[in-house]
Amino acid sequence: MTHTQCAKDGSAFRSSLASVPSLAPEWRARAVARLNSLTKPVGSLGRLEEIAARLVEILEEERPRFAKKVIFTMAADHGVTEEGVSAYPKAVTPQMVLNFLAGGAGINVLARHGGIEVVVVDIGVDSDFGDAAGLVRAKVARGTRNMARGPAMTESELYQALDTGIELAASAQQQGHTLIGTGEMGIGNTTAASAITAVLTGRPVALVTGRGTGLDEPGLKRKIEVIERALEVNKPDRSDPFEVLRKVGGLEIAGLTGLIVGSASRRIPVVIDGFISASAAAIACALEPKTRKFLFAGHQSSEPGHAALLEFIGDKPLLDLQMRLGEGTGAALAMMLIEAAAKINDEMATFASAGVSEASA
Amino acid sequence: MTHTQCAKDGSAFRSSLASVPSLAPEWRARAVARLNSLTKPVGSLGRLEEIAARLVEILEEERPRFAKKVIFTMAADHGVTEEGVSAYPKAVTPQMVLNFLAGGAGINVLARHGGIEVVVVDIGVDSDFGDAAGLVRAKVARGTRNMARGPAMTESELYQALDTGIELAASAQQQGHTLIGTGEMGIGNTTAASAITAVLTGRPVALVTGRGTGLDEPGLKRKIEVIERALEVNKPDRSDPFEVLRKVGGLEIAGLTGLIVGSASRRIPVVIDGFISASAAAIACALEPKTRKFLFAGHQSSEPGHAALLEFIGDKPLLDLQMRLGEGTGAALAMMLIEAAAKINDEMATFASAGVSEASA
Repeated sequence: MTHTQCAKDGSAFRSSLASVPSLAPEWRARAVARLNSLTKPVGSLGRLEEIAARLVEILEEERPRFAKKVIFTMAADHGVTEEGVSAYPKAVTPQMVLNFLAGGAGINVLARHGGIEVVVVDIGVDSDFGDAAGLVRAKVARGTRNMARGPAMTESELYQALDTGIELAASAQQQGHTLIGTGEMGIGNTTAASAITAVLTGRPVALVTGRGTGLDEPGLKRKIEVIERALEVNKPDRSDPFEVLRKVGGLEIAGLTGLIVGSASRRIPVVIDGFISASAAAIACALEPKTRKFLFAGHQSSEPGHAALLEFIGDKPLLDLQMRLGEGTGAALAMMLIEAAAKINDEMATFASAGVSEASA
Repeated sequence: MTHTQCAKDGSAFRSSLASVPSLAPEWRARAVARLNSLTKPVGSLGRLEEIAARLVEILEEERPRFAKKVIFTMAADHGVTEEGVSAYPKAVTPQMVLNFLAGGAGINVLARHGGIEVVVVDIGVDSDFGDAAGLVRAKVARGTRNMARGPAMTESELYQALDTGIELAASAQQQGHTLIGTGEMGIGNTTAASAITAVLTGRPVALVTGRGTGLDEPGLKRKIEVIERALEVNKPDRSDPFEVLRKVGGLEIAGLTGLIVGSASRRIPVVIDGFISASAAAIACALEPKTRKFLFAGHQSSEPGHAALLEFIGDKPLLDLQMRLGEGTGAALAMMLIEAAAKINDEMATFASAGVSEASA
């Protein structure tokens, strides 16, 4: 995937946002009729059947398949790390990007397991990466500014990151990917996601802020104070999601918001990973509620703000394995379930074709 | 897999039961040390890490892999169906066996998705199957007797079914399978599983009995009355799990009990599917509590008795997708997660090998 140079002023994002479609109920009816003809008691495959029906609605195909699947793992740094909000040093962001490219991280293992491609995007890491092979170079800035002192991004940076996400969704579609997952890496990004969560859901910072990669008790207390200060300094207005994202978000979060909206506008279902990805999805849904129908919440993260975001988005997670790694790891596992649901719909025999008796009335 | 003829008097089962090993804590310590050296915050892959550690303990290998996986779908009929306890006619048991052999059932689709072999076993179906290819012929009887009128099985039938399970575990080991899943098909078998659950857990029949394949309200009421009558007639004693299984169980449930004990005694981890499989696992654990450590509860079924059985076994399900199909479908999905956990342990880079900084103290 090459990163083309063109004006990134948010116009691609706004145009995608305006073209997110509504789902047509007749496709749901067709999906349910087919699922009920398959050799199983009606509804006995539970959420797999719900997923299958929604895939049919999204793609407007009777039997969608997912031969090509991709997870975009977007990496960026966060100026707020200078406040001491993470258990790991900032240097870990570029180190993990190199680990992704070498195939040694959790997301690489789980994506290989699921037959999923991983595309690693530098959308804002404070490192040059030399000639590292396989990296999508889309750096907007060398990290955000410190949100505890002022807005994390300029307007120009925000729109550039949003349009980068749109461009990645378009490129995935061109390459034939019909299922997209979100992932991220960025030391400090649970701080940004907690700040977004507090603003969008109106909940107290202390209730939506967790230990991230493993803060101790004083570290968690400091993180909460830093987020409260960032909200005090920036006064983000929840009725303006662009401003929330610009003031207390992150470049990878903005990139994922663009990816989600770009995917929805192209009728590509998107599997949302954990807390950070859900903060991007929440911004996308706040801007255009029709986006919700294209999203599948991959898993329930053990970060405390995640449940609040899922409630805001209006989705229930597919998995609850007490994971909190990010990178797209929860999305990778959930994509296996979503593909399973599609295969149930596509491959199972019907009562008629298999000669199996149906239930008595 | 061929079914060899030999005396099946329960001696193979009793000998396996006596040889279920305890797990050695030093292997857990080794597993945790390795998992903590991998490039992720400690514990951030949640239950995947727990699973990986237990696999290491069970197999006593540092980096187990699961190249060959199998699900045994055992089919049998139930005399109690003459009391009208199922929404489907009894003829569906052999019809679904043929559907399994043709590859058109839910379990076939999900097993193919996970790279898992499905072995279909006739352990007690009231049908001859002619020359149907691929079927393991291990018929103990043409279904159980009606438990509402007396014991479901004779002692000889019980021991033959238990030993068949041991034989299948031995055969799987010979063929190099290192992960085994349980599955079943048998119109009427939620009635047997509910009866077992009521006896082993001491809970009221009404609280552990559900709609099975889709009973209506009067059907559910009748099913509860039939189970209450079966317990009244047979008076199974919870302190004698063999007798509970013989009086109110099923041939496929006894076969699965044998499979589970046979697997545990051979240090093969077993993934338990839903409600029926859990009733077999509960009998196995009641007979030998050391069996628990070899079991992974695949999913939470929507049958109400399942949660009670999981509590009895002492395991938490990996998935909760409101499924209630049986056949091994929940085990198939869970096996993908278990394999993912093993790959995390085996394939991820370490902090040292990837040159990633560790967390500050």
